[in-house]
Amino acid sequence: MNNILLGHIRRYTSLSEAECSKLVDYFVYRHLQKKEWAMHANERCNFLYFVARGCMRGYFVDEAGVEKTTQLAIEGWWITDFQAFSQRRTTDCSYQAVEPCDVFCISEADYQRLLVAVPAMERYFRLMYEIGYGASLNRVKYLFAYSKKEIFLHFREQYPDFVNRVPQYILATFLGLTPEYVSKLRAERIS
Amino acid sequence: MNNILLGHIRRYTSLSEAECSKLVDYFVYRHLQKKEWAMHANERCNFLYFVARGCMRGYFVDEAGVEKTTQLAIEGWWITDFQAFSQRRTTDCSYQAVEPCDVFCISEADYQRLLVAVPAMERYFRLMYEIGYGASLNRVKYLFAYSKKEIFLHFREQYPDFVNRVPQYILATFLGLTPEYVSKLRAERIS
Repeated sequence: MNNILLGHIRRYTSLSEAECSKLVDYFVYRHLQKKEWAMHANERCNFLYFVARGCMRGYFVDEAGVEKTTQLAIEGWWITDFQAFSQRRTTDCSYQAVEPCDVFCISEADYQRLLVAVPAMERYFRLMYEIGYGASLNRVKYLFAYSKKEIFLHFREQYPDFVNRVPQYILATFLGLTPEYVSKLRAERIS
Repeated sequence: MNNILLGHIRRYTSLSEAECSKLVDYFVYRHLQKKEWAMHANERCNFLYFVARGCMRGYFVDEAGVEKTTQLAIEGWWITDFQAFSQRRTTDCSYQAVEPCDVFCISEADYQRLLVAVPAMERYFRLMYEIGYGASLNRVKYLFAYSKKEIFLHFREQYPDFVNRVPQYILATFLGLTPEYVSKLRAERIS
């Protein structure tokens, strides 16, 4: 399982064998059953998660009691409340397995130690966040620019894996749509 | 003027004097007049901008011809279409000075060279993107979670500088509101 994490890191940055063996000690492997929580709202956001297998989501519960999914992560993605993680604060989001998951987690303190011990990880995380930040800004643009139907079609085109794997009620709030509307679009088989 | 950029970088990462003097060669200083464009939609997104003084915005024009501001940057912020910049593609956004600006820009090729020549910059940009990514995810949460009035109030609380400096029509689309509604909220002097 370690190989999935190491393979991902080595796709983005060069690491010596010594650095690789040092690195794995900073991460804790964890299996999550479907619907199991990795982290709950109102806890201190102390962990960053790498999804080696499966799918996780981050969501909050709005004032009307509706769960709203704001983040999704499949294989090769990192997930946490990045702002709360950086600022060492509690999060108002919960992180849950959408499918059975194999994840690697690293605590905030170990993350800081790792970046000092293996400086090549600065490059790796710089690239991960550069990609994530760009994608997140793009998502805001879609939310502002497109009709509800176009948001769904664009997302399906860019991330077909998510559309096939994520339950309708989760996908709907992630895209700012109602589950009924997502169901209708799926049924229409829009091409 | 170089000192503003260097001072910002040194707040986040340690640099030797030799690294500092090497670093400045990678950036080009540019003054932008109010409403001057740094980059136009449909150009290759070849530059990353650091705002040393002033305020810049990124916006696109929707199908109805309405300008929608998706990014704002004041002193100490970096701005570009990060996804297009990373992927060396054309952008569909334009970048314009909201106020007279002093900026430092770096081309994509120089950015890659700089990261190799001064590896401490990996840490600096990792931190910049970690902060930016966290803020962007938070913004998506606000858009989903809050009423229009709450979005404005939260934003004003977190970023009072933007609310005071950015014209109403720009702020409105940035928050997904109409200019009339922002005007009404400002007039109400909601506390």
